[in-house]
Amino acid sequence: MYSSITNHLKHYINPTERDLQLFQSCLNSISVDKGKFLLLPGTQVKHEYFVLKGCLKAYYQDEKGHRHIIQFAIENWWIGDFDAFYNGVPSRLHIETIEPSKLLSINYDSLQELFKTAPIFERYFRLLTTNAFISQRKRILSSLEKNTMERYVEFCESYPTIEDRIPNYDIANYLGVSAESLSRVRSKLKR
Amino acid sequence: MYSSITNHLKHYINPTERDLQLFQSCLNSISVDKGKFLLLPGTQVKHEYFVLKGCLKAYYQDEKGHRHIIQFAIENWWIGDFDAFYNGVPSRLHIETIEPSKLLSINYDSLQELFKTAPIFERYFRLLTTNAFISQRKRILSSLEKNTMERYVEFCESYPTIEDRIPNYDIANYLGVSAESLSRVRSKLKR
Repeated sequence: MYSSITNHLKHYINPTERDLQLFQSCLNSISVDKGKFLLLPGTQVKHEYFVLKGCLKAYYQDEKGHRHIIQFAIENWWIGDFDAFYNGVPSRLHIETIEPSKLLSINYDSLQELFKTAPIFERYFRLLTTNAFISQRKRILSSLEKNTMERYVEFCESYPTIEDRIPNYDIANYLGVSAESLSRVRSKLKR
Repeated sequence: MYSSITNHLKHYINPTERDLQLFQSCLNSISVDKGKFLLLPGTQVKHEYFVLKGCLKAYYQDEKGHRHIIQFAIENWWIGDFDAFYNGVPSRLHIETIEPSKLLSINYDSLQELFKTAPIFERYFRLLTTNAFISQRKRILSSLEKNTMERYVEFCESYPTIEDRIPNYDIANYLGVSAESLSRVRSKLKR
């Protein structure tokens, strides 16, 4: 159960056996059916999630009911509402499973305790957060100038293997382009 | 020279005298006149900057020559091109001083060495990066639904004391609204 998270850790840090045990003791395993909500807006958020298997989306629903997809997560990605998790404010996001998913959850209090007993995890989460910040900024810059094809290609690089697992309209929503325009680009690329 | 950075550190972590000395030994002080560039696109980035005094903007210039302001920095803020700094790719941003500025710069190699000799700074930069990620996401969510007034009020909360130091058109650019619409909102709020 812990092999993929352990590999993920080892990609960023060099944990001891004790570090790994302390980390694993903070985790809980959960299984969620397709189309279920892991998080709803306006709730307290006590967990972040690491994807062992499956696919999820995080989105914001505005006052007019329009959904804006903020993040997808597939195997070996973390997903959560950072602001709500770290600052204790009510969540603003929906997190919904696109496929049946197996996840590891980490609880906020356990994580804070872990930072004290095994400070090497400060580094792991610093590196992850730095990457997340950079990806988010890249997405903002892409939305300023790249065309649909460039944005779709960039998306496939960020989320390899995902393009056949997510409905076309969800990818289009995430990229901020029309579903029709994305369909045309995907057909062209398949030729 | 180090009092404001030391206070900033102590807001996030509890450094020892040794930690502080190691940190200070990584810093260099620089002064930059108004309207000068600290960073240009396409260059290697070896430094990030902490603002002791002054005001700066980071922006992206698209192929049509339009500027998109990504970040302002005033006293006690860090500014840099994260992707270029951490991943060694060429920078994509301009960083320009809006006022004469006094800065502390930290070099990439010194910072990596610091993480080894004083790992408490992993925590400091993790917390800073988490906050930066959350602010960036909030800005994305605000752009999806808030009106000009709400976005301007949020901006004044994020960057207190800044509204009289930055030209109206730069704030409008950052908020993604027209300069005319922002002027109307600012006049209303002053009444």
